[in-house]
Formats: sequence, structure tokens, C-alpha cells
Amino acid sequence: MCFKMFVSLFLMVFLSNGIQVETLEQKYSLETRYIEVPLDHFTAIAAPKFFKLRYLINAKYHVKGGPVFVYTGNEGDISIFAQNTGFMFDIAPVFNALLVFIEHRYYGQSLPFGNGSFSTTENMRYLTTTQALADFAFVIEYLKKSFFENVISYDTHPFVAFGGSYGGMLAAWLRMKYPYSVIGSISSSAPVFYFPGMTSCDQFYEKVTTVFEKYGREQCVKTIKLAWDVIINLSKTKLGMDFISTTWKLCRKLKGPEDVEILLNWLSNIYVNLAMVNYHYPTDLYAPLPAYPVKVFCDKITTSYFNDTKGLIEHFSHALEIYTNYTGKRVCNNINSTFEEYAELAWDYQRCTELVMPICSTDADMFITKPWDYEKYSYDCYKKYGVKSLPPDWAILAYGGKNLKYYSNMIFSNGMMDPYSCGGVFHNLSATVWSFNISDAPHQIDLRNSDVADNNYVIGARSFHIQAIKQWLNMV
Amino acid sequence: MCFKMFVSLFLMVFLSNGIQVETLEQKYSLETRYIEVPLDHFTAIAAPKFFKLRYLINAKYHVKGGPVFVYTGNEGDISIFAQNTGFMFDIAPVFNALLVFIEHRYYGQSLPFGNGSFSTTENMRYLTTTQALADFAFVIEYLKKSFFENVISYDTHPFVAFGGSYGGMLAAWLRMKYPYSVIGSISSSAPVFYFPGMTSCDQFYEKVTTVFEKYGREQCVKTIKLAWDVIINLSKTKLGMDFISTTWKLCRKLKGPEDVEILLNWLSNIYVNLAMVNYHYPTDLYAPLPAYPVKVFCDKITTSYFNDTKGLIEHFSHALEIYTNYTGKRVCNNINSTFEEYAELAWDYQRCTELVMPICSTDADMFITKPWDYEKYSYDCYKKYGVKSLPPDWAILAYGGKNLKYYSNMIFSNGMMDPYSCGGVFHNLSATVWSFNISDAPHQIDLRNSDVADNNYVIGARSFHIQAIKQWLNMV
Repeated sequence: MCFKMFVSLFLMVFLSNGIQVETLEQKYSLETRYIEVPLDHFTAIAAPKFFKLRYLINAKYHVKGGPVFVYTGNEGDISIFAQNTGFMFDIAPVFNALLVFIEHRYYGQSLPFGNGSFSTTENMRYLTTTQALADFAFVIEYLKKSFFENVISYDTHPFVAFGGSYGGMLAAWLRMKYPYSVIGSISSSAPVFYFPGMTSCDQFYEKVTTVFEKYGREQCVKTIKLAWDVIINLSKTKLGMDFISTTWKLCRKLKGPEDVEILLNWLSNIYVNLAMVNYHYPTDLYAPLPAYPVKVFCDKITTSYFNDTKGLIEHFSHALEIYTNYTGKRVCNNINSTFEEYAELAWDYQRCTELVMPICSTDADMFITKPWDYEKYSYDCYKKYGVKSLPPDWAILAYGGKNLKYYSNMIFSNGMMDPYSCGGVFHNLSATVWSFNISDAPHQIDLRNSDVADNNYVIGARSFHIQAIKQWLNMV
Repeated sequence: MCFKMFVSLFLMVFLSNGIQVETLEQKYSLETRYIEVPLDHFTAIAAPKFFKLRYLINAKYHVKGGPVFVYTGNEGDISIFAQNTGFMFDIAPVFNALLVFIEHRYYGQSLPFGNGSFSTTENMRYLTTTQALADFAFVIEYLKKSFFENVISYDTHPFVAFGGSYGGMLAAWLRMKYPYSVIGSISSSAPVFYFPGMTSCDQFYEKVTTVFEKYGREQCVKTIKLAWDVIINLSKTKLGMDFISTTWKLCRKLKGPEDVEILLNWLSNIYVNLAMVNYHYPTDLYAPLPAYPVKVFCDKITTSYFNDTKGLIEHFSHALEIYTNYTGKRVCNNINSTFEEYAELAWDYQRCTELVMPICSTDADMFITKPWDYEKYSYDCYKKYGVKSLPPDWAILAYGGKNLKYYSNMIFSNGMMDPYSCGGVFHNLSATVWSFNISDAPHQIDLRNSDVADNNYVIGARSFHIQAIKQWLNMV
């Protein structure tokens, strides 16, 4: 249960609190297309099944002969990720590039069995990174043939992969497994090393804590640590649960220990998300947030509460609203909130089967101490989905662990203040597999559209990407 | 039906005619080991299944710190391929190398469901190149951990992949998909380009014909071409079928058109095999053969037979014995012969599902004219196995087609007189993806043990390989 909310971290960053925003079509004029892709790319069967995979195209900046920039979709509706990858739109004119955003199977509109995609274990078995990568290669191959049918050497027509977070892992893996498909990959905040045996479990929460220490006022981390016991103790009585439920405007009152567990996860998750989106300028995409939301959050809870349980809960209420209700329009907070039911389920399944990222909290961080237990994690997953996690060393076997020296044309950029940087690539791994570490930056800021408030670090990262692409395309 | 025998071409080369030979253990002192590997490397399921994969080890020449030379097994019992890859044994002392030969799943003793491995379509679904490559990577990872547990950076401990024919395709694909697993690959006579859209269907039989033209006496090809009609016409009557059956010592008399079809395929197959094993020195591994068996075969059939049907059948009988019964000990010829039932079935299944290699005969070759028809081929396969072939462009998508320029440390060697060279790599594809074309050479001669009769071309090829491995291991 513990990671039920944690597992959707990647996507939560982009989540709306229900506020209507400008549509993707209005903003970036993307054309929606669908392509029939094989459900199973690798196995011969009696009646091969296909399903509709969605992809989005922008040909506004494309000039014949120009490259294709392809975004390898994440764990959610592809339009959300297209909207948050303004960098591709910003640089398309420089390269005369065609833009393509491919949705990940089992997310958004790309559900292999429609509403039944998650109804049985059998229906979910095709939700693997191996199949997803083959989808991307399949679509790219199709585009090379159809869109560029007049290109003589279509198989060398340059496609460049882009991806952020999990999408960045996929962009890198696509370049690794299908280098004939894309000429290079730009992976922003992609925790490709965040697997058992490669990154220790305490790193993630320690990085979140570091962000709060750096950007929050003195005592912030201490107060957050103190709060766990206060909440837990208060929740031992009905009166206490009612008080928290009312003060924090929960949509449904806490009823017992299980609800409290959910509440604690919800809270952890908010801290994590605040750290990830701790951008240096206000963001206003889905949930309006101030610049440096961690700082603003911390500003609200720096009183001393040692003998003031009620005061702490009340102050936290105001602080949490920075994240949950900055506009003041939200009526209540649903701590079980599933913004997009299928996406959360699919992602949780992926985290259970392949993407097992070790996480634990220790005395060194501001979270409730909790060990990492692969066996327990795997068993909990088994109870949920009826399948066993792949073996812990699966990622090392499937994607090379840290031994990536034989690859080429890959960039891994990390926001050094992004919790997921704990699983990132921090050193150049070959002559053309590069790491770019962006000081003071949160999660995948370099893939966002340029902003007047961008600092030199972010501008530098984007220049680095542009320069690399030019090299890959023999433009320099 | 036409390709029923053709499909086992690769392996037929090494086939015994039932004669007992020195065991592998006696000759090369290989230790047999087994390892439990996942039946499905990619999918999370309720109760993950494992099966025993066999591998053979020779540590005789190994000195601590030395590399590991690993042979990626073909479509058959791994011991046969180990016995035919003397090159690895010959050079092991130079490198202090450990030798490992890994059996391919569904062959030899590595049957996932034992005797039931081919009893249902469901049981056969795990027979894919994708799973086989994952097996190899799995075993290598295991060896790196177990055998070299005292090696600090085990994940960079150098393994070099070797493979001939289909095993050579796998060695190359292993390097392509798992470059962190092996530092380089040596693929001999590996038709990695022999797929729809990459190699035209007439190339294979044309190359066989070229071999007979070059090594056979004048009129040989003409006589072989003439013989088809003679056999077909003669087989139209019971008398004719009986005559052929008796003269060619068939174990079972020909009964009708279906048997005749099998006979014609058996004959085609012998021509193909003769061309493949047309070594310049006598080979005496399973079936003793003279040097240049194509020449010896042709010497027997160069009389003029235009009005002598019986004479032609009789002379062919003697000629065929060069291949079928050089020692004179064989009692009869089984044209349905399945040397190793499972291997033939497994290979036929692979040729039906993934490894669809277009083959046709035209007026330009010495075979019966027959077009290539992917749809028909696929339909025939469907009738046999109840599964559809993967799409024709599958190999381009899965293994990059001819666009291999982003890879490194790969060698593709071709015997220029090997029929399978038609699907080989003939040009260097990157700074370290090399082609080495061995003049006048048949199928995968460079992987055989050195012989006093080796010519300079073969010696050159082996020196090339040794030099490359030294470079990969930073020994030069």
C-alpha cells in the first residue's frame, strides 16, 4: 500500500486539479493520428492481434529533408507530455523538424483491449517496456516509409528521440536497442540507473529532503519530521481523525489505520511532487503554482509547534493548499485521488513488474522511517495483480546496468535538485554518451518551453542539446 | 512441402549418416553444465517458469584474467557445433581464454517442456530469437557473477561471442542488442541480410549453381538440370518409381506424387549441402567426404544421357553416394530422414515464424523453377503450426535491416562459395563493423580447426579474427 501513490510520481507532476486549460490542439496545433500496431511484436500466434496506438504530429516547422523529432511517450495521455515538452516546439524551426509524439501502450487512448485492458492479468501481459519500445520502432519505421516515401535511403532518415522521466528512459533504451531507428536520444531526468543493485534505496527521499533544506526556511525539514508523529498520534482517536479530516478538507473522513496510511502516503507524495516541480518561475499549466513552491510551502510551517498539535495541523493545512489548491477553488481533497484511473493502474503495474525502483527512508531524511524490502514489495504486487515481479537484476540484464560504454549519441540530463536525479547518469559513459547536470534544477526543466525567467543553467542545457543534435545531423 | 528439407540446411552440414564418432568429451574435454533460465524473459506472470539450458565449458586454457569465448548455439545439439568450431580451441591458449558453448533453447537437451516441447502451439511460443538472445545474455551474466566473482568489475569482464551460420546471426544480434554482454562478435557465414526486402529470392540457388559450375566438370550443371525432367517423367509410372527406388536404394519405395516431391527436395538439399561443405580438404567428421565433394560428384555424371534415362539414374546413384554413403556402409537412403526429430521440427518452426528467408529458382540456376510466394509460404506454415509468420519486414524492424552503422566490434565473414553468402554482409558497415570475404571458401570454414591443407585465404581470415579480438581486448 505504501507506494500506491508514490508509484504515480512521474505523472503527478503534470496533474491538473480539475481546472480546464487550453487544449493541446489550440496551443501547439497537433494532429492526432492512429496506427495499428501488433499487440505482441515478438511471438507468432494463430490470429495476430493489433490495436490502435495514438500519435500526434506537428508539421508546421517541417521542411522537406528536415529531421523528425520523436517523443517517446510516458505513463499517461500523450497530449499532456506534448504540452510539457515545449523545447521540441521551440527548436523545431531551427532544424526544419517534424514533431511526433507517440503514446505509450496502455495509456491515454492507446488501450489494447479498450476498457477491458486491465480487467485480466492476461490482458495486461503486453504492458512491458520491451513491447513499448517495439511500438516506437514500429511507428518510426512506418513514418520513414509513408511520410518519407520519396526519400531514397529512408532507413537512414534521421529521427531523434526525446523523452522526459520514464519517457526519457524509453528514449535512451530506444537508441540502445534500435539505433537504426533513431540517430540519437535526449533523455531528461531519466532514472535509468534507478534499479536494485544500482542505486541505494535511501537516495530518493534524501534528495527530496535536500531540496527542502536548500529552498525551505530553517526548521522546515525539522517541522515536517515532527509532523509525522503528531499526525499518527492524533489519528489514533476518532476525534483526532475528524479534526484532521475537517482541517485538511478531506473529501472523505478518515475512518481507521488504513485511511491514515493512505493519508501519510498522500502527504509524502506532495512533498516529493513539490520538490520535483520546484521551478524557479511560476508554473501555471494544470495547477497554478508559485515560483519555488517548496519555499512557499515551508514559509507556512516554520512556527514552533512542540506543544501545539492543533496549530501544526492548521498550519500544514495552509501549506498543503500551496500544492492542492493554490487558486482556492477546490472544495475538498481526495487522498485516494486517481486523476486518470487507467494511467495510475497501468503505472502501478509497471512499477510492480519491471520498474521496481528501491525506495526507503532513514533517519537522514524527513520521511517516516521505512526499510526497502524487495520480497515484500514483490509480494504486495503479487497480491494486487497476480503476477510476480521480474527478478531484481532484470534491468541490468535487459538494459545494461551502468555498462553503457558501447553506445553512442545519447544525452542524459539531470536536474540536480530533482529527486529522480538519484537514479540518473552523472558521467559521460562513452565518447558520445553524455551526462549534463543542471545545477539547482528540478525535474526535466530542460524539455519545457523557454521562459524569460530561465536561468543560465537551463539555457546552457538546451544549447547543449541543440549542439549535440547538430552534430548528430552533421550540421556542424 | 518444398522447403521441408531445405529448412534444415544449416544443420545438415554437420550430419552424421549414423556413424559413431569420437565423442566431444574425448576430443575437446568439455564439461557439461545446466542452468535454470526463465521460459519468458520479458513478461511478468503468476508462476514464472524456468527450464534447464545446457552449456559446455572448457577451462583447460583459461588463466585468471583471460577472456571468455562464448559460442551462441545454433539449431541443434550444442555438442555438434562445439565439435565443429575448432578455431575457438585453437586460439584459446593465445588468449588464456575460457570456452563456453551455450545451447539454443528447444534444441539438444535444452527443451523447455521436455518431450512435450512441440506438442502444442502454446508450448512452442517461447521459441523466438528474442528469447534465445536473452538466454545467452542471462547465462553470460550468471557466469560473470559466479565464475568471476572475484573480478571487481565483473560487468566489464570481456566475453567475445562466436557463431557460425544461424549461430553467427545470433552472435551478431547478441552484440547488437546486448553490447554490455559481449565485447565483440565473430559471425561466420551468417546470413543476417537474408530476409524479405533485403536479399532477392534467386540468390541462394544461383550461388549453389555457381559452385557446381566452378568446381564441377563441364556439363555438370547442364546434366543436373536435365535430370529433373527425367526423374519427373520416370516417376509418372509405377515402374519408373520402382526403378528409381531400387537404383537409389531408397528405404521406402516411392508411392506417388507426394513422395516424388519429397525426393526432389531431398535431391535439391544434397546439392545445397555439397556446395556448403565443398571444403578443399577431406572432411571426416560425421560423413566422410572427399576434398571438393562437388567436383567428385560431378565427375560421376558427366556422360551424355540424352537418350539414356536408365544410365542417368544409375550414374546419379553413384554420384549421390559421394554424399550419402562414401564409406559404403549405408544400407538404404531415407529421403524423409530426420536426423534429430526435434531439431528439424524446431528449426522448421523458426523458419516459419521469424526466419523467413526468401528462396526461389529461376532459369539462371540448376534447380526446378519455382517462384517465391510469401503468402503461400506463410499459409503452409500456418497449416503446419497453427500460427502466422511474423510480418515480412519483421527482421528489418527487429534487427535493423542493413542499417548497422551505429554498431561496433562485429565481424561478418563469408565464404564466397557458400550458398548462404547470398545473405551475408559484404562491406564494412562502421569503423569497427567489418566484413571479411574468404575467396573460394564454403560454409563457415574459418571457425573450423586449423588444418595443414588450409589455404592462405582461410589462414588470413583466422588471423583477421585474432587481430580483431586483440584490439577489442586492448592487447595491441
